[in-house]
Amino acid sequence: MLKKLKEQVLEANLEVVRRGLVLYTFGNASGIDRDKGLVVIKPSGVDYDKLKATDMVVVDLDGKVVEGRFKPSSDTPTHLVLYRAFAEIGGIVHTHSRAATSWAQARREIPCFGTTHADYFHGPVRVTPELSPEEISEDYEANTGHAIVRRFEGISPLTTPAVLVAGHAPFVWGATPEDAARHAVILEEVAQLALATVALRADCSAISDCLHDKHFLRKHGAGAYYGQT
Amino acid sequence: MLKKLKEQVLEANLEVVRRGLVLYTFGNASGIDRDKGLVVIKPSGVDYDKLKATDMVVVDLDGKVVEGRFKPSSDTPTHLVLYRAFAEIGGIVHTHSRAATSWAQARREIPCFGTTHADYFHGPVRVTPELSPEEISEDYEANTGHAIVRRFEGISPLTTPAVLVAGHAPFVWGATPEDAARHAVILEEVAQLALATVALRADCSAISDCLHDKHFLRKHGAGAYYGQT
Amino acid sequence: MLKKLKEQVLEANLEVVRRGLVLYTFGNASGIDRDKGLVVIKPSGVDYDKLKATDMVVVDLDGKVVEGRFKPSSDTPTHLVLYRAFAEIGGIVHTHSRAATSWAQARREIPCFGTTHADYFHGPVRVTPELSPEEISEDYEANTGHAIVRRFEGISPLTTPAVLVAGHAPFVWGATPEDAARHAVILEEVAQLALATVALRADCSAISDCLHDKHFLRKHGAGAYYGQT
Amino acid sequence: MLKKLKEQVLEANLEVVRRGLVLYTFGNASGIDRDKGLVVIKPSGVDYDKLKATDMVVVDLDGKVVEGRFKPSSDTPTHLVLYRAFAEIGGIVHTHSRAATSWAQARREIPCFGTTHADYFHGPVRVTPELSPEEISEDYEANTGHAIVRRFEGISPLTTPAVLVAGHAPFVWGATPEDAARHAVILEEVAQLALATVALRADCSAISDCLHDKHFLRKHGAGAYYGQT
Repeated sequence: MLKKLKEQVLEANLEVVRRGLVLYTFGNASGIDRDKGLVVIKPSGVDYDKLKATDMVVVDLDGKVVEGRFKPSSDTPTHLVLYRAFAEIGGIVHTHSRAATSWAQARREIPCFGTTHADYFHGPVRVTPELSPEEISEDYEANTGHAIVRRFEGISPLTTPAVLVAGHAPFVWGATPEDAARHAVILEEVAQLALATVALRADCSAISDCLHDKHFLRKHGAGAYYGQT
Repeated sequence: MLKKLKEQVLEANLEVVRRGLVLYTFGNASGIDRDKGLVVIKPSGVDYDKLKATDMVVVDLDGKVVEGRFKPSSDTPTHLVLYRAFAEIGGIVHTHSRAATSWAQARREIPCFGTTHADYFHGPVRVTPELSPEEISEDYEANTGHAIVRRFEGISPLTTPAVLVAGHAPFVWGATPEDAARHAVILEEVAQLALATVALRADCSAISDCLHDKHFLRKHGAGAYYGQT
Repeated sequence: MLKKLKEQVLEANLEVVRRGLVLYTFGNASGIDRDKGLVVIKPSGVDYDKLKATDMVVVDLDGKVVEGRFKPSSDTPTHLVLYRAFAEIGGIVHTHSRAATSWAQARREIPCFGTTHADYFHGPVRVTPELSPEEISEDYEANTGHAIVRRFEGISPLTTPAVLVAGHAPFVWGATPEDAARHAVILEEVAQLALATVALRADCSAISDCLHDKHFLRKHGAGAYYGQT
Repeated sequence: MLKKLKEQVLEANLEVVRRGLVLYTFGNASGIDRDKGLVVIKPSGVDYDKLKATDMVVVDLDGKVVEGRFKPSSDTPTHLVLYRAFAEIGGIVHTHSRAATSWAQARREIPCFGTTHADYFHGPVRVTPELSPEEISEDYEANTGHAIVRRFEGISPLTTPAVLVAGHAPFVWGATPEDAARHAVILEEVAQLALATVALRADCSAISDCLHDKHFLRKHGAGAYYGQT
């Protein structure tokens, strides 16, 4: 079942490996079939070089395994909370990519310092609040998802398709698994640029809203004029 | 038409990819045929691994597409302003290369800290003034070019063939598209060296004008003695 | 003799090279056969691309060469002290990997800034006290081992399978040579993340014990639920 | 003539390229035949991927070209001054490798922060004094060599086989061209480690003389016990 989505999810998992965002089995990618209400996700702790599309695990939105001989990623409950709360997203990628994870560990949001950021993320890349001891000890992975959702109150998830989980690492999403993987790669680049930017100017301010909007909107929305139509 | 120039422009586009200066479709390169007054430029948002010389777009100096089935790069108006203002340049490359973009985001010019810089760039690598909201909302890309041209008042563009657009990234040029690509690669190296230099000595001063001139002039101009003749 | 262990030790040596942790012949890996009380270790200063399993040197726990036509690694006495003191370890890897060595040179322990660290190292990665002139001039390598053992008084070596030798570099271990090599790779990643984290927030605090334990224990111990069973 | 030395010099030139220390044609390597008093050096500005052993230029110690159809490296006078002053060296490598050049640009000597440094360089890696305008305008390259020689007054060149030329980049040497290339690679690693070390501890002190000597002497001199005999 869901043969095509499994291939897309496998490809998203492999793309972040090829781009150097993943060490060993750190990280995972998933995709959703909204009509069927089913999520396809990487199995937990399986080596990437052995992963096949048929190894992907199918779970429903309550986390029940519908198909698959492996256990799904231990972060599956986080993915499910995001799919339930963000109706417009179709894929999620989680990595411990180096620069983005450093911002998450420092618990600093990434300001929009330039147009590379503005082209893909509208506003800063936000950081979740830290979880309470209760949220950590019980249903930790689902509570990670809930913290992300709370942080996005009033924000459209597809306009800033990434978040930094405090003390952990980024979760990134998109309209499709492929988009989510591309956003994960771009987030890492943006995080790296921002790291060097604050090294050069500790109090660097974000670019103007005007420039930020210009770049975001020339790529996204009704008036976009970047790329081929 | 312009078969040879298209191949040179394709090659300049691919060179900055091979050197690691480009992620996805970020960046673009162009070249000009001064006799015909025609510019050859990369199409907008096309994957580099599919780019062929025949995909390059030909535009006149007013931006009218003369040949090509694709839309030209969205930064084409910036290129055209530079070609019109800088009569001696023959190629332009724009990338979001990591270290140079960090300096652009920090809005700091790159001082000449050493002979690697002095060998290719006479004086610091300058930063454009920020655009006004009006310049951003209307004709943004052309106004980016105008800001560069204003920053080069009284400066010969080929002696410092690069500029940092504030909050954005570098534009780099040369006598040919090949030269522009090489200068983009060297700018990135120089920007990386300068990043580490200020980390080691925050108040580091530029090298003396005397040493700066010595290195620049042993490579460029009438008395050059570097390389084979 | 010990054919299989020699292959494991060779593989651990090669793994840290493939992962970019080793320059030239810096570094060494070993493994122990607890039943026989024999240690297999890399020969000293032999090029990695010529290393064969049969080149590995077998020594007893007193350092007497039992088999092998090469001299064992000059750090062999350090390995032996660790094998004698830490009964539960089966492999040791020593590298001069870049980020971990920088922390060792700065003589700073690596705090647990995030879950990547917590997944593998329980508590900070500790630094040994500096050796006295007497400890350096006589039995230097064995005294390096003794300093590590003293630093681990009251700490279970397998819960934090790495240490930074002050002014030198990391020693890393595990239940097997393969585990030791993997821990060396992950230590380097964690050290790199921590470097960028303190660049972003000089006074960054460690994550809470609660989150630290959660991540460590979801991977290790009786209640672990990461990976396939 | 000097067929074997030409091959060694070619190999030293290619080794620093393979190791990522050289961009384009930056850098050069040479070797000397002490009996004949002849130096073999890379030609100026020739692409590395086209370099053949027979392209190497032979000059005498006064800089007169004895054989070769190309012009020698523009830095040849620096090499010759070093060969005349340092009787024990047999090869010289000059690169603009990234971390070492950053220290040179910051005009900071590299303290011995750890054993990786101590294994190869006895004492800090020193910085030359800046040249006067007169030294720059006339015989600049030879004067660069003289500044290095003055900096090594009372210091044996083979115990610290590298120097940072202020505002420029490193020169590195060894008993042979192969040794010089290896030292250039190790200097870059040591410079990179030291960069991260001072980022972690701005006032980090050098390791003790005792530890420094221990490591240097276990690899070099009469009592060395590292490697195979």
